[in-house]
Amino acid sequence: MAQHKYLLNEDQMPTQWYNIVPDLPEPPPPALHPGTHEPAGPDDFAPLFPMDLIMQEVTQESYIDIPEEVQDIYKIWRPSPLFRATRLEQLLDTPAKIFYKYEGVSPAGSHKPNTSVPQAYYNAKAGVRKLTTETGAGQWGSSLAFACAQFGLECEVWQVAASYALKPYRKAMMEVWGATVHPSPSELTEFGRSLLAENPDHPGSLGIAISEAVAEAAPHDDVRYALGSVLNHVLMHQTIIGEEALLQMEMAGETPDVLVGCTGGGSNFGGLSFPFLREKMKGNMNPTIRCVEPAACPSLTQGEYRYDFGDSAGMTPLMKMHTLGHNFVPDPIHAGGLRYHGMSPLVSHIYELGLVEAESIGQTECFTGALQFAKTEGIIPAPEPTHAIAAAIREANRAKETGEETVILTALCGHGHLDLASYEAFLSGEMVDHELSTADIEAAMAEVPAVRSAH
Amino acid sequence: MAQHKYLLNEDQMPTQWYNIVPDLPEPPPPALHPGTHEPAGPDDFAPLFPMDLIMQEVTQESYIDIPEEVQDIYKIWRPSPLFRATRLEQLLDTPAKIFYKYEGVSPAGSHKPNTSVPQAYYNAKAGVRKLTTETGAGQWGSSLAFACAQFGLECEVWQVAASYALKPYRKAMMEVWGATVHPSPSELTEFGRSLLAENPDHPGSLGIAISEAVAEAAPHDDVRYALGSVLNHVLMHQTIIGEEALLQMEMAGETPDVLVGCTGGGSNFGGLSFPFLREKMKGNMNPTIRCVEPAACPSLTQGEYRYDFGDSAGMTPLMKMHTLGHNFVPDPIHAGGLRYHGMSPLVSHIYELGLVEAESIGQTECFTGALQFAKTEGIIPAPEPTHAIAAAIREANRAKETGEETVILTALCGHGHLDLASYEAFLSGEMVDHELSTADIEAAMAEVPAVRSAH
Repeated sequence: MAQHKYLLNEDQMPTQWYNIVPDLPEPPPPALHPGTHEPAGPDDFAPLFPMDLIMQEVTQESYIDIPEEVQDIYKIWRPSPLFRATRLEQLLDTPAKIFYKYEGVSPAGSHKPNTSVPQAYYNAKAGVRKLTTETGAGQWGSSLAFACAQFGLECEVWQVAASYALKPYRKAMMEVWGATVHPSPSELTEFGRSLLAENPDHPGSLGIAISEAVAEAAPHDDVRYALGSVLNHVLMHQTIIGEEALLQMEMAGETPDVLVGCTGGGSNFGGLSFPFLREKMKGNMNPTIRCVEPAACPSLTQGEYRYDFGDSAGMTPLMKMHTLGHNFVPDPIHAGGLRYHGMSPLVSHIYELGLVEAESIGQTECFTGALQFAKTEGIIPAPEPTHAIAAAIREANRAKETGEETVILTALCGHGHLDLASYEAFLSGEMVDHELSTADIEAAMAEVPAVRSAH
Repeated sequence: MAQHKYLLNEDQMPTQWYNIVPDLPEPPPPALHPGTHEPAGPDDFAPLFPMDLIMQEVTQESYIDIPEEVQDIYKIWRPSPLFRATRLEQLLDTPAKIFYKYEGVSPAGSHKPNTSVPQAYYNAKAGVRKLTTETGAGQWGSSLAFACAQFGLECEVWQVAASYALKPYRKAMMEVWGATVHPSPSELTEFGRSLLAENPDHPGSLGIAISEAVAEAAPHDDVRYALGSVLNHVLMHQTIIGEEALLQMEMAGETPDVLVGCTGGGSNFGGLSFPFLREKMKGNMNPTIRCVEPAACPSLTQGEYRYDFGDSAGMTPLMKMHTLGHNFVPDPIHAGGLRYHGMSPLVSHIYELGLVEAESIGQTECFTGALQFAKTEGIIPAPEPTHAIAAAIREANRAKETGEETVILTALCGHGHLDLASYEAFLSGEMVDHELSTADIEAAMAEVPAVRSAH
């Protein structure tokens, strides 16, 4: 049987992140100040982020050195393995070769620590005492809790109340790493108190949790806020996934024909694909590169490309991105990490340039594929990367029809050990594919502000 | 910082299991037929196990080839990594070097698939259609479910009713891999029905679940039973852990001074330690080798060495082992995998020969160490290996006092992603160290049969 694992040693771990921006044929449009609609400058971000991260957000350098302190912590789990899905290929009876880069080996079980660790590092370096953030299902909150523990930072997490009640294990994980976790809305912020006064059983939302985390960070000099996706510097930190995968595909002696990645805010997709897109733009390879999003939240395939807020409360700078409207609330699908109304401005821009494709897949097809994957490859995927697996299986089935030895590469961005309730729902037949409400999208889009700027 | 990971490639994976029996200065006493008290022969085991496994149970060969079909599946996750706990060493401010072999990378998240895979293979080879087993917390049941999926075997698991109700996620994991899971006692066996007639809300026990699994297997020619620890062949399958660790310690340029392993039925401990004990007996190294058991279930340190049954119902052959009495019910500590009344006959024999030591540790010390470990090394340990971690930390603290660069090796036999409720209990202050009841032990020992044989 073909080799199953391609492993790199610690001394082969890439020591730089890749910034795709200078290599693009056109620069991405700037973020705009929410009040003036003029391009936002570093000072506009200073109450939320330390200057090192703000400079990474706008840098024109192609490569940024990974600090040694960050490399040391990355080496707890990095380089991560690249697997060839030999047993899944057998089950599918396909001539395709399926490779997957596995990020579930990280402490938090997902790709998120690739950015939480440097974010905690730069904040600690800037003298910050505490980081705040929001979390839904808990992947990001637990990743930031782990990172803060490494640098002696306090970590305060507002978790969407419905998840806080239904997912006690993610909360325990955050607490193991020393974080304080509040259900959101909470009594700790003015906004939270106002919502609880209206409804003491308010289920919360990501937008509300962001507002509470920001409200705690912005007024304090020694408190900052951390975001787990969407922004340029976050996607850049994730490029270590793709840089490693390039080395590992070379070890395997293969070049991808098709690269698929699940796409919520865009950090997993950008992390895997940007180094390969660089090689494609250089003419070194020619893979089709495709975003895979949930049918219930299809910002790229059905959203509009325009300026919108990053949060539901409309407090962030305006970003030009594919959006379903910042007040759009996706149906409660199991891939909570993909339920974001917008899309990373950088991924949106690259999609507009025609450099990548996009497709959407419903969750029952995703879990059907996930079960095939778990039975053969052994790893139980998180709900988010089941979309990537379903897309890879679609490609493998096409290859079976054409007889081509298509080389498929994807990222399995996390394991599903804390998401087994989703599998229970699927196995019991309770999981459904939600109908997308175009009326809801239209209503949400009507609330997106008209931008006066020329951008 | 020192290197953190020592990785082997697939072509470096050992291709033989190690059988320690022929290397021991005295052979272990035989199992006895429960009725005649005469040494049990292969035929006595034939209703439960296929002949290949029965022969492995009694073989005098030092090495057994791992079948290629088993190696192929091992390679999904093997060779497993050896880590040096550099960040934990820093936290403890110790001159000791702490190494841990990590088995949580397996599909089921523990060391158990090292034996479930060959057990499923040999059963499939013998034409068996279905395997039955019992499970408590679910580690063994999920490992067997995964293995059965690889060879197209049906898998039927009786899960202790209390766990079935409280741990729905392990049940979901088993079902993902295609197993059928019943709460035990069940309506499916005569014994189960009799217990439910007495008490419809019977919480079950491991002993009852074993009886139900055996009752389903024994009468059918195409159904067999699988056990996850205790027996010689199970410990032998686990020696791949220690064989790999030997190669990896060599990569690290270190020889262990102290080896500690958590010990329930004995398979994790035997798997790690037997290859090192071989090297010690050969004079190639001289590590102290120590079993670590829970203070609430101290079969080695406080049990008697005598013939007893392997199950609570008294249906199995009699095995000479350290036992607290087959009707002893340990307090409900969180390390469910260590709550076994007896100890592997082979580990018991080796302990009696003075080749290994033993100590017991209470669970609050274990979880205190686990939190230090999780915060520094990133991995959240399962409750069982928190005992090994606590023992390693004891050694590291001793080294700090003496100033010696003690080299400590242990096995982290599983992750705690499905055990976060235990951490919640610890963090909330609800976890206590149970007092061991010597009266309970005395009462259970009084029910152990007097053996008429000379053994």
